[in-house]
Amino acid sequence: MKRLFFEISYDGTDFYGWQIQTNQNSIQGEIQQALTKLNSNQLIEIVGCGRTDAGVHAYRSVFHADFEKIPISDYQQFTYTINKMLPHSIAVHRIYEETKHARFDAIRRTYRYYIHQQKNPFKERFSSYFNLELDVDKMNQAALCLIGIHDFTTFSKANTDVKTHICEVFEAKWHRTEDGYYFEFSANRFLRNMVRATVGTLFQVGLNKVTIAEFQNVLKAQDRSKSAASAPANGLSLWRVEY
Amino acid sequence: MKRLFFEISYDGTDFYGWQIQTNQNSIQGEIQQALTKLNSNQLIEIVGCGRTDAGVHAYRSVFHADFEKIPISDYQQFTYTINKMLPHSIAVHRIYEETKHARFDAIRRTYRYYIHQQKNPFKERFSSYFNLELDVDKMNQAALCLIGIHDFTTFSKANTDVKTHICEVFEAKWHRTEDGYYFEFSANRFLRNMVRATVGTLFQVGLNKVTIAEFQNVLKAQDRSKSAASAPANGLSLWRVEY
Repeated sequence: MKRLFFEISYDGTDFYGWQIQTNQNSIQGEIQQALTKLNSNQLIEIVGCGRTDAGVHAYRSVFHADFEKIPISDYQQFTYTINKMLPHSIAVHRIYEETKHARFDAIRRTYRYYIHQQKNPFKERFSSYFNLELDVDKMNQAALCLIGIHDFTTFSKANTDVKTHICEVFEAKWHRTEDGYYFEFSANRFLRNMVRATVGTLFQVGLNKVTIAEFQNVLKAQDRSKSAASAPANGLSLWRVEY
Repeated sequence: MKRLFFEISYDGTDFYGWQIQTNQNSIQGEIQQALTKLNSNQLIEIVGCGRTDAGVHAYRSVFHADFEKIPISDYQQFTYTINKMLPHSIAVHRIYEETKHARFDAIRRTYRYYIHQQKNPFKERFSSYFNLELDVDKMNQAALCLIGIHDFTTFSKANTDVKTHICEVFEAKWHRTEDGYYFEFSANRFLRNMVRATVGTLFQVGLNKVTIAEFQNVLKAQDRSKSAASAPANGLSLWRVEY
């Protein structure tokens, strides 16, 4: 048995998220189908570093797959062949041997949430159009409250398969771009909807509708109903995963 | 009667081209519908600087429209309102008064054709994936033959509404990007399919399947059957128009 790691990226717009689902288009489903075909139609199940929701992208993500026999032993050729089989919206960048577990051994995940403030069809696919004025300094002051170890129940969706809502946040900061901003958010783990709920609530801070003290209390409340509406999926991308 | 110029951009992926057509989604159609609505439902017809084909984008384009009475006299407010009415795939950047004709008075149009050589879902929408090795120096030597006044029948589609296939080319050059190239092509006018047919034939030069001398003869032949297959639409964008 040999384990391979795959570094990939995808445009999540037209998928119902990473996770395989019956009768729904998923990134995991597309990749498993291609790998299974290459594996003489013996099912290959893949394990992602995490799950992205419907419409969320990955600039870089990682999954692993275990093979009794590697279907193509030259990994450059393997990369080339699997890319030919996958749609334009999913790309494999690198395949390599690894003994780690793609999900359990990831120690740091980084997401970016992009917004552009001028309407721009060339940006729209991977960035969310947000044309209201934002006090980004204030958003960054509020975001500082996120750093460290906290219970993120407020900024998560009900999810039966996690035992705890405790996450350790390493970075949470808005950075300026040419025509907008991106929020870089790094943590040991992320809960379902966590980035989009956090970004949506930070928008309220930037619009001067929520104070920094209120934002801090919202986090502390551990109460889903205190979070603002989630920011749209199109602006969010998983940016990198570290092991 | 007052004439306004509109500077716009659009993602052409999901449109059947610029030109309005019965039962087909077009950029002109979307814009006319919005302007007509703002004009108390009195039909506004717009005149573009040119027509882009199905799937072709505009990073910057221009059209004009004539109004008996301008519906919103503050042009910033007009821009804001029309953008709210138009889909994400079409943006208006600026509206201003002008006496010129958007099509007849344009003296120079510039297109860019983008290719990326590593599969990349984040690029795919506005750039064409081309993974074969290209001799770009040779493509640029061949492209030099295009500069000046030539009959472009070879690189056009049969089109009944043009009287001549003569175009004056000002620039035709491949430039390197981080992970590929773009071809910048400027001329006084462009015929239907001209950029994509030219790019498709230049690919053959870059693949060493057509020599520079043969490329020159193909242009001189004024024979559509000598052109190679057109490059895919997704890589092509109208980049700017000058008056």
